[in-house]
Amino acid sequence: MPNRVDDFSAYRKKMNERIFEIDHLGIKRFFNLDTQAYQDAALDEKTKELLGLVASLVLRCNDCIDYHILECVKVGWKDEELYDAFNVGLVVGGSIVIPHLRHAVETLDLARQSPEES
Amino acid sequence: MPNRVDDFSAYRKKMNERIFEIDHLGIKRFFNLDTQAYQDAALDEKTKELLGLVASLVLRCNDCIDYHILECVKVGWKDEELYDAFNVGLVVGGSIVIPHLRHAVETLDLARQSPEES
Amino acid sequence: MPNRVDDFSAYRKKMNERIFEIDHLGIKRFFNLDTQAYQDAALDEKTKELLGLVASLVLRCNDCIDYHILECVKVGWKDEELYDAFNVGLVVGGSIVIPHLRHAVETLDLARQSPEES
Amino acid sequence: MPNRVDDFSAYRKKMNERIFEIDHLGIKRFFNLDTQAYQDAALDEKTKELLGLVASLVLRCNDCIDYHILECVKVGWKDEELYDAFNVGLVVGGSIVIPHLRHAVETLDLARQSPEES
Amino acid sequence: MPNRVDDFSAYRKKMNERIFEIDHLGIKRFFNLDTQAYQDAALDEKTKELLGLVASLVLRCNDCIDYHILECVKVGWKDEELYDAFNVGLVVGGSIVIPHLRHAVETLDLARQSPEES
Amino acid sequence: MPNRVDDFSAYRKKMNERIFEIDHLGIKRFFNLDTQAYQDAALDEKTKELLGLVASLVLRCNDCIDYHILECVKVGWKDEELYDAFNVGLVVGGSIVIPHLRHAVETLDLARQSPEES
Repeated sequence: MPNRVDDFSAYRKKMNERIFEIDHLGIKRFFNLDTQAYQDAALDEKTKELLGLVASLVLRCNDCIDYHILECVKVGWKDEELYDAFNVGLVVGGSIVIPHLRHAVETLDLARQSPEES
Repeated sequence: MPNRVDDFSAYRKKMNERIFEIDHLGIKRFFNLDTQAYQDAALDEKTKELLGLVASLVLRCNDCIDYHILECVKVGWKDEELYDAFNVGLVVGGSIVIPHLRHAVETLDLARQSPEES
Repeated sequence: MPNRVDDFSAYRKKMNERIFEIDHLGIKRFFNLDTQAYQDAALDEKTKELLGLVASLVLRCNDCIDYHILECVKVGWKDEELYDAFNVGLVVGGSIVIPHLRHAVETLDLARQSPEES
Repeated sequence: MPNRVDDFSAYRKKMNERIFEIDHLGIKRFFNLDTQAYQDAALDEKTKELLGLVASLVLRCNDCIDYHILECVKVGWKDEELYDAFNVGLVVGGSIVIPHLRHAVETLDLARQSPEES
Repeated sequence: MPNRVDDFSAYRKKMNERIFEIDHLGIKRFFNLDTQAYQDAALDEKTKELLGLVASLVLRCNDCIDYHILECVKVGWKDEELYDAFNVGLVVGGSIVIPHLRHAVETLDLARQSPEES
Repeated sequence: MPNRVDDFSAYRKKMNERIFEIDHLGIKRFFNLDTQAYQDAALDEKTKELLGLVASLVLRCNDCIDYHILECVKVGWKDEELYDAFNVGLVVGGSIVIPHLRHAVETLDLARQSPEES
């Protein structure tokens, strides 16, 4: 049964395809830049995904948090390490981050339950 | 001759002392929590300082950027690695981050010139 | 069948009526100021609605984005022009705006499908 | 029949329990600091809850708004006083706050209807 | 000898006069609304100034912090009470508020030293 | 005699050159995307610069405001039109924008006084 993280991933995929269909050169280039920003370079992809996660937490964007948690799980971050990153985001961003922390913890639990992670 | 990074560090030190003098229990505990958030735990200090730097960039706080760049230099991040982290902050936070990127690049240059880094 | 944009407009109308019922002088004056800010003056309404849309995108407020897209469609902005405005919002606000870009593109598609636009 | 405010309170309770289960020292301490910040001290709890509400409004966090409205009702703020606080949040934060004002007014109405307030 | 708070007040006065000279109806009305938002109504002016101060802290606007600290001192808030309000702002807004806390503490010290407060 | 707008432009030029020297592919591509976002396309450059200005106002970035005011003056926006755009930014972003409005009005006055605008 699809959970909210699966729903998010499906919606994200559908709308990204719609955006590419629009074929706006600037928007397409931005999406490419965004992808490239997390690839191995002076910093490796694993570290960069964690940076993206904490940036998403302090900017309080649930969809961005979900995306980066899924990526962080894929590249091998462990729960304890992610909780430590959550804590940095919480201390930097303050109690206004707490609702997003609840969301993030739930997303991580859902990500660990999904078949592809078993 | 003191540069603006030295001035910032001196002002930060002076005002932190004034804040401790105020002796507000909640504020003191917050400062302790803030210090502890960057200490070695499931994630090491080095990684956490980089998280703090990117969080500061996307939240566009020059003083926070300066503080975390100085810490990142202390814990051994190289320029190329920091530029990669700057790039993640720029892509996540957008062109509104550019003035803070200019500030960050200048701060890093100043940090590398200072006697304690030579 | 009502879509999410219709639901938003209905909820907006219902709650604005409830807010007027409260009859707080400051709040009512703020709503008037907000309406007047987009009326023809030195800049025309059409230009101002586009300003409101980009401001809503970079501040990442989906309800505000929906409202201004509906207004932008009413005053005659074409899709290609709105995509160009989306791009300015994306570049200024960064990848954190992407979930709101997905939302905006979907809202525009829904607005174009609704009877009043046919 | 549970309304959205009851749903929020139930979700908040469930996820806070899950977060305590994670047992991250920094996160637990932050939650304690957050609780203590609103307790009677030089300022009383009643005033502090109103501060928390306006901070939540201008930072545009619906869950935080809901939480502080429920607390403000508990500590005895009257509707007219809360509308005045909403107005301060609206003027400071601008029209981007309006969707959150709609949400806040609805939450307050729901809070007044619930059995525990009758 | 004028300190930075006096300089801020002088600059604020000069530029507000320049803005009134521009004579833009919407802008003038906004300034009026802003003034009225802090006047005695269901909530008294004293409480509202404290709300304005905490909103300014969590939104991290030094000029706004300075203005509301000066007003808070005028309406009779004591240092211990203001520190408690600072703490609420710090916990809600996180460590990113710390540079603004330093600024606020210094502004309060300067405000207490100025002749009109003696 | 150079004023603060000239100083900003000189610092901006110097640091942009330093950033290009760093030669980070992602950062260079972002700067290109940023330049392209304001070029004639479905929307013309003149309209886009105004969008950039209002986005900068509501995101409260003085350097970005200065840059876009200089560009808006270059592409031919008149003072009355810019005041109208300032008003949209003020109403969307709230009183927290007022210090940036003061800055913007001063920058526009300085831009009109400079030799290249005479």
